[in-house]
Amino acid sequence: MRAGVVGASGLAGGELIRLITQHPDLELAFLGGSSNIGRRPAELHPGLRLDFGGLTVRPVTAESVDELADTVDVIFLATPAPVSAELSALLADRIPAVIDLSGAFRIRTPELHDRWYPKVSRRPDLADRFVYGVPELVRDRLPDAALISLPGCYATSITLGLAPLTLGLGLDLTTVVVDGKSGSSGGGLQLRTADLHPFRSGAIAPYAPTGHRHAGEVRDFLDRARPGSIGKLSMSAYGVSHVRGLLTSSYVFTDAAVDQRELQRAYLRFYKEHRFVRVRRHNETLIPVPDPQAVLGSNFCDVTVLYDEDDGRIVVLSALDNLVKGAAGQAVQAANLRFGLPEETGLTMQPVLPV
Amino acid sequence: MRAGVVGASGLAGGELIRLITQHPDLELAFLGGSSNIGRRPAELHPGLRLDFGGLTVRPVTAESVDELADTVDVIFLATPAPVSAELSALLADRIPAVIDLSGAFRIRTPELHDRWYPKVSRRPDLADRFVYGVPELVRDRLPDAALISLPGCYATSITLGLAPLTLGLGLDLTTVVVDGKSGSSGGGLQLRTADLHPFRSGAIAPYAPTGHRHAGEVRDFLDRARPGSIGKLSMSAYGVSHVRGLLTSSYVFTDAAVDQRELQRAYLRFYKEHRFVRVRRHNETLIPVPDPQAVLGSNFCDVTVLYDEDDGRIVVLSALDNLVKGAAGQAVQAANLRFGLPEETGLTMQPVLPV
Amino acid sequence: MRAGVVGASGLAGGELIRLITQHPDLELAFLGGSSNIGRRPAELHPGLRLDFGGLTVRPVTAESVDELADTVDVIFLATPAPVSAELSALLADRIPAVIDLSGAFRIRTPELHDRWYPKVSRRPDLADRFVYGVPELVRDRLPDAALISLPGCYATSITLGLAPLTLGLGLDLTTVVVDGKSGSSGGGLQLRTADLHPFRSGAIAPYAPTGHRHAGEVRDFLDRARPGSIGKLSMSAYGVSHVRGLLTSSYVFTDAAVDQRELQRAYLRFYKEHRFVRVRRHNETLIPVPDPQAVLGSNFCDVTVLYDEDDGRIVVLSALDNLVKGAAGQAVQAANLRFGLPEETGLTMQPVLPV
Amino acid sequence: MRAGVVGASGLAGGELIRLITQHPDLELAFLGGSSNIGRRPAELHPGLRLDFGGLTVRPVTAESVDELADTVDVIFLATPAPVSAELSALLADRIPAVIDLSGAFRIRTPELHDRWYPKVSRRPDLADRFVYGVPELVRDRLPDAALISLPGCYATSITLGLAPLTLGLGLDLTTVVVDGKSGSSGGGLQLRTADLHPFRSGAIAPYAPTGHRHAGEVRDFLDRARPGSIGKLSMSAYGVSHVRGLLTSSYVFTDAAVDQRELQRAYLRFYKEHRFVRVRRHNETLIPVPDPQAVLGSNFCDVTVLYDEDDGRIVVLSALDNLVKGAAGQAVQAANLRFGLPEETGLTMQPVLPV
Repeated sequence: MRAGVVGASGLAGGELIRLITQHPDLELAFLGGSSNIGRRPAELHPGLRLDFGGLTVRPVTAESVDELADTVDVIFLATPAPVSAELSALLADRIPAVIDLSGAFRIRTPELHDRWYPKVSRRPDLADRFVYGVPELVRDRLPDAALISLPGCYATSITLGLAPLTLGLGLDLTTVVVDGKSGSSGGGLQLRTADLHPFRSGAIAPYAPTGHRHAGEVRDFLDRARPGSIGKLSMSAYGVSHVRGLLTSSYVFTDAAVDQRELQRAYLRFYKEHRFVRVRRHNETLIPVPDPQAVLGSNFCDVTVLYDEDDGRIVVLSALDNLVKGAAGQAVQAANLRFGLPEETGLTMQPVLPV
Repeated sequence: MRAGVVGASGLAGGELIRLITQHPDLELAFLGGSSNIGRRPAELHPGLRLDFGGLTVRPVTAESVDELADTVDVIFLATPAPVSAELSALLADRIPAVIDLSGAFRIRTPELHDRWYPKVSRRPDLADRFVYGVPELVRDRLPDAALISLPGCYATSITLGLAPLTLGLGLDLTTVVVDGKSGSSGGGLQLRTADLHPFRSGAIAPYAPTGHRHAGEVRDFLDRARPGSIGKLSMSAYGVSHVRGLLTSSYVFTDAAVDQRELQRAYLRFYKEHRFVRVRRHNETLIPVPDPQAVLGSNFCDVTVLYDEDDGRIVVLSALDNLVKGAAGQAVQAANLRFGLPEETGLTMQPVLPV
Repeated sequence: MRAGVVGASGLAGGELIRLITQHPDLELAFLGGSSNIGRRPAELHPGLRLDFGGLTVRPVTAESVDELADTVDVIFLATPAPVSAELSALLADRIPAVIDLSGAFRIRTPELHDRWYPKVSRRPDLADRFVYGVPELVRDRLPDAALISLPGCYATSITLGLAPLTLGLGLDLTTVVVDGKSGSSGGGLQLRTADLHPFRSGAIAPYAPTGHRHAGEVRDFLDRARPGSIGKLSMSAYGVSHVRGLLTSSYVFTDAAVDQRELQRAYLRFYKEHRFVRVRRHNETLIPVPDPQAVLGSNFCDVTVLYDEDDGRIVVLSALDNLVKGAAGQAVQAANLRFGLPEETGLTMQPVLPV
Repeated sequence: MRAGVVGASGLAGGELIRLITQHPDLELAFLGGSSNIGRRPAELHPGLRLDFGGLTVRPVTAESVDELADTVDVIFLATPAPVSAELSALLADRIPAVIDLSGAFRIRTPELHDRWYPKVSRRPDLADRFVYGVPELVRDRLPDAALISLPGCYATSITLGLAPLTLGLGLDLTTVVVDGKSGSSGGGLQLRTADLHPFRSGAIAPYAPTGHRHAGEVRDFLDRARPGSIGKLSMSAYGVSHVRGLLTSSYVFTDAAVDQRELQRAYLRFYKEHRFVRVRRHNETLIPVPDPQAVLGSNFCDVTVLYDEDDGRIVVLSALDNLVKGAAGQAVQAANLRFGLPEETGLTMQPVLPV
């Protein structure tokens, strides 16, 4: 399949290029963007191999859509949400698969969308046509999806962590407190003093202490998947001192009686057919897991569930590489499912550890 | 005053040496330990100035107590809890001030002590004589305290964060979920593969996901300070990829009605007379605070309180340098108070930032 | 081909497992070691996928050689040099390809070997049969090589950097000063206090300031390749504060007249047929290159040559991932060449950046 | 003494504020700058204590010089070189001590100045009046110096490393190859993509591979101090993955016969009266030294000299905190000497380690 990437200068764009060039059935056929026009991939992404047959970044405009439609079978939008909203309107029905990595079409409930994305106006008819979700949880709907909206990196991790409780065990969660810890690549490449190396290195930066819009996604999705299963759900997000990978800790209170053994079984059962989600015991290897370093560079999401008897709470930890399983990798996974390829095609790379 | 440090090889021991040599009224007169006997400070702590007038590490035994009692006015025990339990029995009533940085005498309730410190047996009569607490919260009792037990690094941070709620505002906290994030110096210098640089660098290691004994301290102390003020209190602890400094996030649910303005005022009022606790607004400087890098090397504890309207929860963030305010610095602070010196003596160093 | 890895617990061993499982024509058939007997790969290497069909670490003994010979077509020795010396004697002529990653058989000149590896005794007849060299530089000899010795990580980088000068341009280098900078993974997983995260993080550790045995390899190899081409060659090595990847700076003085344009052309020409060596201009992308982060996880070695007019010196910079191109990757590359596979088979992964 | 800091927003400016507030005889009386006018110190430097008696950043103009002259006894210019050149002309003869941390007045030889600072025009008469040098090496001239120019961070380290050879032992150095490794704080707070945390973390960035203007300073100074003592002197500079501190490696070739014992003695003798320079043996503590982490936050410069018998070269390693001994600390040290205070006043803080 011929693939295009819009937003080729960004971190998710670069990661898409990396994965597409490693994919046996995808061919990189187009690079789009609003900056760095005319630049080659290796200029923008210092690690990429140097030869891309002359591909350079080009603008995407109403005028160029015809040509683009002739060039690619699938287009990945690694663009800011407002840009994705615009481009989706242009590209829908013109390209067999439009896969959006932004927040433009993630939240279905209009009020919730407007709260977290007040500046992203989108066409409601278009929004309704998007299939949203972590590929594992919407797998059946992807083969027919011409428009796909993928969750944010945190939302992917939290949702994969909570789904076995609400959708697998059918529990009602009265209170969920999420603490998210992410590396600096989660913030993109905007030029801010606080993100310069001297201040970001060694930091534990409480950048979103009282809420994060990815929590809005999670609630919206899980609530639609099983109405009433989520009571309070709050989130705080921190930037910690590494670059790639995130860990979400979901502290869950429920009125139901559960125990460690039952939880472990439920998680194993829930993800039995899903190779990218690894249900891991906390002490099964020489470092405590899940730890994002153990999935770095790969499309794995490691999940551990623990029952804390003291307070009767469930602790769900999930770790993923925010640029792979949290963005580009799950986008390629969605494309695989969309086009009937085995889900793992081009995504079998092992984590790179230690880094 | 002449000061001795037992546990001179460890990280807290080294930090005590650093602070004592910077203190105008303390003189380093003794170094004790069970390993590295005969070694000079600079051999063990690579940064320390090289000249210590011949001081080397010596063992502390029943036989040497007389000489030690003639040598020092205050002794700091930066030793493992079982060693502190033994040494305290030897040194009590022989040295005017015994200041223990270990967990041996922190928890008053016997059942709680036995649960978290099952291997630390101590004499009950001795245990009862220890004054335990963050210096800010037991300031009045320190001038007469011959035996002082100081909180763990996490406990110091959490307690300073919660005290204005329970002791200042008089709130009853129904549920407190604590998420602690610490650098690698919190784990000391034991040789473990998981703590080698290749695995610890870049980690978000969930090393104590379902409980931490410092949470036991916090509950025990706050419950005695105002019985019934703490309902559920659970903690999870993570090792993140820097070396020095920790952040604790306390997610607090209470039935009382509060708002941001009231909370901010209450915290400022509570710590008005306490120079080492800085109540900071989240956005008052160019990085989000509190962040442990903004207190690094200093005796400050930065505290921020936020009201999250969405879920009606209070978010309390506290950051400190685990080796200073969380250990050696607060030990010197306690010694200052014990001997009637101004609390800040020798502790006025500003944070070193960026590092 | 069926592949075995001895030294499966170490970092190079883990990386071999990673690469073999990603290789279309290699099958992991044996794991050997002297510790961790009976353990599964994922217990030892936290990132690896969990399922390895029951493979566990087994000892390699004189008694087990017959079985091993039936099990594998190629064996990789990621063992300490003394162990490699012993195992090679056992395995030579029993397994079609023995590929040693240690220093046991790197240096041909006996006096030089004894100086840098005084404790490694080896059979001279066996030593003579090993083909040693960076695969790029001994490519023609590898198809017939039953015994292959691969250079150390630093030696690979330095040799690839200097070869175009001595072997391509035919220059005589009067003085070469090498400054090597490596991450902590270069030191393996031995338990040393100085390698614990608190001390290794933020370090610039001059661990081998007056010499490094990898420099012995380089001199020995280049001197044999073109006798007299190397005058003085000294090296100093530093551990810096990241985990994976190294950079070598070779400051070269020669009496010959050269200029930037000629050097650049010579390097491009020399590596024209070698896909894993990328000759890069210093400013061709958004970070200065070569930088090991731009080759991380890949088998690339990035090389930049610069002429410093001020002092008439040549500056050669080379960067590689010490665990891939400096160890496991080049071992797989050698295996590919040994068995007539395209050199890049299983090694086409792009660098993972940023990390 | 009343002190002013111009360039209060930058890293060196912040460090000056830190040190001045810890100094018993300096009082912070003025903050100047061209940006952040009206801001308080803690807004710009997140770690600083919050209370500065209302001091905010103010512009320095021709009109405000009178008032400034009434306000301060010493002014520190932590400004870019062109700004320092302008301000010095305004402030000379108006304020008893002008201490410039920029490169404006470092190089005496006009051709050399113009080469490395082509955009910095300065009044020659003013330039001649500046006393330039590491305080240790120009100590006698500082009490009478109204205008002081301090070396760059690298130059300080290299000069302190080489001076015992040329000025102490009287050696002529035929070739000196300098390899400098610095943390990210050396680059200041300019907003560049390459300096964002994702790319700077884990980097070994060869940012000045064929020359650095600090080498120009070193040559200019040492050549004037003992003409003819320096032959070739080249430098390459690298950014490594920590924040604070630098190490310079000077690889020295000389025709003179020396040995380790003689070198060690010469260095100890040369720095006998200089408390801030610590001559250290490479293995005297648990990490190899010198390592910048062992001087972090302090005004120490650690120096180690080694004789490499293999190639007859001398290896000189020096480490310092670029913001303290390389900038603000040595500025305060110079001020102490200027005003007849003991050199160490306000600079006795021990290194903070580990960080």
